[in-house]
Formats: sequence, structure tokens, C-alpha cells
Amino acid sequence: MTTDTPATACDLLIEAGWVVPVEPHAVVLEDHAVAVRDGVIVDVLPTVQARQRYRAAETVSRPDAALIPGLVNAHTHNPMTLLRGIADDLPLMQWLQEHIWPVEAAVIGPQFVEDGVALAIAEMLRGGTTCANENYFFPDVQAAVYKRHGFRARVGLPVIDFPTAWAKSSDEYFDRAGEVHDLWRDDALVATAFAPHAPYTVSDANFERIRMLADQLDLPIHLHTHETAQEVADSIKLHGQRPLARLDRLGLVTDRLIAVHMTQLTDAEIALCAQRGVSVVHCPESNLKLASGFCPACKLQRAGVNLAIGTDGCASNNDLDMFGETRTAALLAKAVAEDASALDAFSALRAATLGGARALGFEAKIGSIETGKQADLVCVDLGQLETQPLHHVVSQLIYACGRHQVSDVWIAGRAKLRERSLVDMDLDGLIANARQWRGRIQALGR
Amino acid sequence: MTTDTPATACDLLIEAGWVVPVEPHAVVLEDHAVAVRDGVIVDVLPTVQARQRYRAAETVSRPDAALIPGLVNAHTHNPMTLLRGIADDLPLMQWLQEHIWPVEAAVIGPQFVEDGVALAIAEMLRGGTTCANENYFFPDVQAAVYKRHGFRARVGLPVIDFPTAWAKSSDEYFDRAGEVHDLWRDDALVATAFAPHAPYTVSDANFERIRMLADQLDLPIHLHTHETAQEVADSIKLHGQRPLARLDRLGLVTDRLIAVHMTQLTDAEIALCAQRGVSVVHCPESNLKLASGFCPACKLQRAGVNLAIGTDGCASNNDLDMFGETRTAALLAKAVAEDASALDAFSALRAATLGGARALGFEAKIGSIETGKQADLVCVDLGQLETQPLHHVVSQLIYACGRHQVSDVWIAGRAKLRERSLVDMDLDGLIANARQWRGRIQALGR
Repeated sequence: MTTDTPATACDLLIEAGWVVPVEPHAVVLEDHAVAVRDGVIVDVLPTVQARQRYRAAETVSRPDAALIPGLVNAHTHNPMTLLRGIADDLPLMQWLQEHIWPVEAAVIGPQFVEDGVALAIAEMLRGGTTCANENYFFPDVQAAVYKRHGFRARVGLPVIDFPTAWAKSSDEYFDRAGEVHDLWRDDALVATAFAPHAPYTVSDANFERIRMLADQLDLPIHLHTHETAQEVADSIKLHGQRPLARLDRLGLVTDRLIAVHMTQLTDAEIALCAQRGVSVVHCPESNLKLASGFCPACKLQRAGVNLAIGTDGCASNNDLDMFGETRTAALLAKAVAEDASALDAFSALRAATLGGARALGFEAKIGSIETGKQADLVCVDLGQLETQPLHHVVSQLIYACGRHQVSDVWIAGRAKLRERSLVDMDLDGLIANARQWRGRIQALGR
Repeated sequence: MTTDTPATACDLLIEAGWVVPVEPHAVVLEDHAVAVRDGVIVDVLPTVQARQRYRAAETVSRPDAALIPGLVNAHTHNPMTLLRGIADDLPLMQWLQEHIWPVEAAVIGPQFVEDGVALAIAEMLRGGTTCANENYFFPDVQAAVYKRHGFRARVGLPVIDFPTAWAKSSDEYFDRAGEVHDLWRDDALVATAFAPHAPYTVSDANFERIRMLADQLDLPIHLHTHETAQEVADSIKLHGQRPLARLDRLGLVTDRLIAVHMTQLTDAEIALCAQRGVSVVHCPESNLKLASGFCPACKLQRAGVNLAIGTDGCASNNDLDMFGETRTAALLAKAVAEDASALDAFSALRAATLGGARALGFEAKIGSIETGKQADLVCVDLGQLETQPLHHVVSQLIYACGRHQVSDVWIAGRAKLRERSLVDMDLDGLIANARQWRGRIQALGR
């Protein structure tokens, strides 16, 4: 080796105008590079040093871009991407009963799930999301599609107290959950979680069974709860307890719990969540659109509760845009807290990355740009007119940037998006397939 | 003329997959075309008929796009685009006193205004906005820049009870207002409005003078008011009246009034606004970000108040994205009204177009795709993956579409954006100039 040859080999060196590692908090590293080997981040250092130290098989130089950890969509129903905008502007029960459920009943099945998840993966990649917390039926199909496309996910193992296309009885839900979990338990990209639908659709007995199995299998529990005031009132009427109190009685209020929505919370409930290590997934746009209520995101964050961000499904959002969702979270938190300093830009970005990773139990693997973590990385082009002049990088990312400014995406070091082009997915084929589904769904004659 | 030659000449024929005229309300015309002659819409008809009837100098065919009226940004401070993200996540007074005002004091002047407005025009065009209600100092410079770039605007003639770089005394504010108005009073694209800053910065005497002059010159009055609870409380303390009551005493609560923000309103005040024909400009993202409060958009709309949408300035938003702002308005209205049917997609689009046009007194000229109106038109590509499958056109426009899906823009029939490229503005030059301003502002050493 001559003195001119850098000493250390790596697969990929990404040089960015700015690296925002998320951990440590509130740091922006100017003109830094990230070195990747075997899918893992091996170094974060100034670009001038990186060029001396590393001999990279590939170097990607993005002087106008910020490099951030891949965004984690901590609550979504991705097969429903095929139902994007099928019905809007309706009260929740009318929306569900007259539109969503009848259409789902007619189309649900492995093909619907496969095609919907593929469409969603493409949309997520184009928007800088590299990991999803999935919640729908046919997790076996979902898992296979995520794996095929090299996308990181936790797929929910559904449990609900009525028969669906996925299972006919409680025993069948648990049997199928066990089978799917067993298939994926050692996978590097795709894992599982229990996904009891909601407190109002799952019995005490089934919650207890989930509690026991989740402990044994070391799985998170992904649950919609405290979504609306009605849900809380109904629980008091039926169980004599608010949902969170009932879940606590059943042993579910622990650091396994991924509690989604949480628009109705007392200060005592917030303190309980903080004390037990519950993660709260804030889905602000879904909560607004369905008029569910306002999640006290700032109070939760200031109480020390782990906060994550989710888009919810495209039937109620209507996109998988984590940039938009995170901006909405940051904006809305201020008005709800009546405090313009609530959920600042750095904290919002943290919720959308490391907060989501922690909620999913992936904190050791992803969520920040740190040596030893998986190279789930996103380049965001801040050189575009809409983010000029560039006074503060993270302000632009949260308050001005659109998801179309995402230029490049890697998951576990593999390029998934290069200069806006999907590396290994057929964009035109996905659009053509979505159009076919439109025809099929419209033909239902609703 | 042979029978093969269409009978009628026109300058431009735009064929779109869908035309959303806004007026009549809640209509989507499939496979329709718009014929334009001398900058005016002369026909809206099925594309197959249009091809037979019109001999167009230019035909633009966009089968995957929706054609909508140009969006009207009904409240903005466009020179502040150069201060995008200069300070965020701060309480209002700290933000103003420690950041915005000191920077403005150091940079304000004709060059700052000229460069900021040019940058803003490019951003607005790229996002489908064709008309702005401008509110800043140096309206003479603003007007010239809007005119030069063929962009439609009302520029505010500022009145404020303290000296600024624009004027040193009340008399000077009024003198300069008169001069600027006189220069632009007959212009087809650029008009003026009075822009008293806010009830807490303008005296009774100046409001009365504005009332009289606005009547004589037939001008709207563009005013921030009822922005925060503090403003209302202070007015009661100082004047013994809420701002709207005081304005009513001074004769300003009429259909000339463009009342911006309006987060604090009683039912009686809403009824008064409806009865007097006041227009309310809702700036949801600014209200959220500054924790100002929640405008009762649905109540206003259902009471018959004309509702418009504004982004506010880039120092508090931080963008000029009317797609994003309108989506936020539609989402937030539902949660605030506790009714998922509030401000439906068609009504939100109407507020962002015809509502803005009416607020600005431009209702006869723009805001809808109707024969006889100016051809301020925007093509939005719905063929992209993020708006597939396409179950409902206007749902996709409001709830899923990003501003980067705007492909083409015309103002008064002149092409301003073609397939995402600015027709007559130098994109790279604008970005380079924004970077220079960044350097100058950062050098202030704040």
C-alpha cells in the first residue's frame, strides 16, 4: 500500500453538505460523510478526513443535501393505499360502515395486500421512509412483500374478536399469529408484533393471552387506543374503566406497548405512560381528518414519553408522507400546547426517526446515524428553490421541505432510490396496477 | 374554409383529464378542454368537441392532469421569503423582538423587497399559485416586480403608527399610499389595497382616514386581526372593546374588509362578518406555528362568511405552499368543529381559489374556470404514484397531492410554468441570489 491509498475499505461513502445524526440530539455536522460496510454505518466524519481514510467501492456526493436517518412510519395500514381517497369528509362510523368495510369485504385477500403494500413501499421510498409499523390482515403476505423489496418493517399479527378474511375465531387468530411469527423470527429486515385491533374490539381474555405471548416471544403490542372521546366513554360504560386503566389491569401497560393515537389523556395517564416506558404514536393528520381529537404531543414529550409519528392508512390520511406528517405534528403541538416552542424542529425529527425506532424495538439497529447502526439513510436535496435561503438545516427539513426533495435512500446499505429513481421497483408497472385496482373497485358500483 | 377546418380561432387550448371549474360548485368535468383567447377563457367544453370547434395556435394536452383555477394566496409577506426559517420554535414576542425585527432593520430596503418578491413568485408559480395578496413595506417595488413577472397581485399600502424604512409619519404613510395607488390604479394585473398593520398598531384616527379613502378609491382593507387572545384582551383593556367592535365603531366592518387570522371569534362576531360581507383569510399553519389559536373555519363557512386561505410569510410558515396550506385548513377544520364533514375537499378548494378572489375583489376576473374570466390556470399531474389509484379527483388534489405535481401554470393566458420549468424566470439565478442573501444575513452575526 502506498501512502496515497486510503487504508480502510468500505462499500459506500456518502458525502453530504450536512449530516443530521439525530443522536446526539440537535446536532448538524457540516460537510460530513458516512462510511458504510456490510450494510452497517462504520464511521461518521468530516468529508475531507473521510476521503483520506476510506477507500470506498462507491462514493455518493451530495453537497446540497442533508443526510438524515430513514424515517420510521410508526403506524400504517399499507394495503389500504389502494383505497386512497375512496371516501372522505364523512363522520367516522358512516365512513367505516358505508364505505371502507363494504369495499374491503369485496376486495380483501392476498392479492390486494400484496399490491397495496408494494405501492406503499414505492411511495414510502420516494418520501424518505425506510421502516413501517404495519397493521393489517394477511401479515404473511405483507412480510413477504417487504422482504422481497428489501424494506424494513414490523408486521402486526392481528387479533380481533370477530371473524375476518384472515381468521374465523380467536384460536385461529392466535394460531396464524404464531405461524407468521415463527417464519420471520430471525429475519434481519422483517419482524412481527402483536396487533390487537383496539380495546373495544378485543376481550380481556384475548388481551391476557397477548400479554403472555408477547412476553414469551419478546414482541411489541401495536394497539389503537384512546383514539376518540367516544371510545373512552364506551369503555367506562362497558368495563367501568378508561381503556388505559383496563389495559393496565390486564398487564399491558409496559414498554412493549405501542399506543397509537392517544388523543384523550389525563395528566395521570401521561405520567403512567412515561413511568412504564409506553411509546405513543402520534398520527396528527388522521386525528384531524376524522375529527378524533388532539394528541397532547408536547405534554407527552416533556413528560418523557417516547413519541413516534405515523401516517395511519391512506384511506384516512390520504398519503404516506412522513415529511408532511412530521410537519403537521410539529405545527399542531404548538397550538395544542399554546406554546410556540413546543415540539421544536429537532424534536419533531427525532420523533420521526429514533422515536419510531424505539417504539418498534429497533432502537439498537436504526433511527440515528451512529457507528454500528444499520445504514438506513436518506439524502434530502435542500438546494431547491423551496428551501432557499438555507438559514437553518433542520428548520428547512421540518417546516419547508417537501418529500419530493428526497433524492436518495438506502436501507441496510442497499440503494433503494437514486436521484429520485426507484432502483429495483417498476414505477410504471406499479401505477398501471393501481389503475387496474381503481377499475375493479369502481366496478363495485358503490 | 373547408369542413375539416375548425371554425373558431383561439390562442390556446388546454385539454385535461379533468377540469375542476370551482363554479359551479363540486363539479368535475372529465376529458374537458379550456379555450383561451387574448388571455380570457372563451369556452369550457368536452375535448372531443373542442377539437372540432377550435383552431388553436397552441394545444396543451394533459390527459393525466386536473386543470384548476390558479390558487390565490390571500395573505402573504413575500419579501420575507428571504428570512425563511431564520428563527423558529419561539414565543411570538421573542421571535419578533430578538430575531425578525433586528434582521429586518438591518436588511430592509428596495433590494431586499425586490429579491424576496422575485424568489416568492418563482416558488408560488412552481406551486400553482397565480395571485397574491401582499402585505409588506415598499409596495412600489413589489408592484413593479409582480408586473415585470406577469404575476397577479394586490399590494398592500402599509399604515402603521410608528416610523419604518417606508415612511416616518402618518402623513407620509398616506402620501406614499396615494402615490403608489395612483401609479397602479388602472393596471390589469397589479392593484392595491390599504394594509393597516393591526388594530394594536393603528390609531382610531388613521383607521377613519383609511375608511374614507378606501371608499373613495374603491379599495379593500387588508388587516391582521383577532390573531391571538392577547390581542383581544389588550383591546378590551385599552379601548373597552374587542377589535372587531372597535373596527365596527370606526366603520370598517364592511365587504371591503379582508380580515386575516381571526382565531378568536364569538358566534355574534361570526354572524356580523357574514351579514356585512367581510372576507376572512385563514392562515392555519401560521396560527399553529405561532400558537395563536384555532380559526373556526367551518363555523365561518357555514355562516356564509367568505373564506380564503393564506400562507402568511415564510418567516412564520415557512413556505408559500397553497396545496399544503389548503390541506391543513381542510384537516384542521374537522378537528376544530369536531365534525369530519367540516370543510370538505370541494369547499377547501373553493376557499383557495374563488374565496381568495372574492376577498381581493377579483371575483369577476379570476377564481374559477368560467367563460369570460381571465385564464389563470393550473395543471396538476395526478398520474404520479402518490395520487394513485385515482378514486376521486378533488380528494386527491386536497388530501394527497403535493405542490410539486403542478406541471403547468398560466396567468392571463400567458404560460409561466411549462412541464415544471419556469418560462421566463432564471431558476439558478434566483437560487444563487438567495444564497447571497443568506451570506449577508448570517454575517449580521445574530
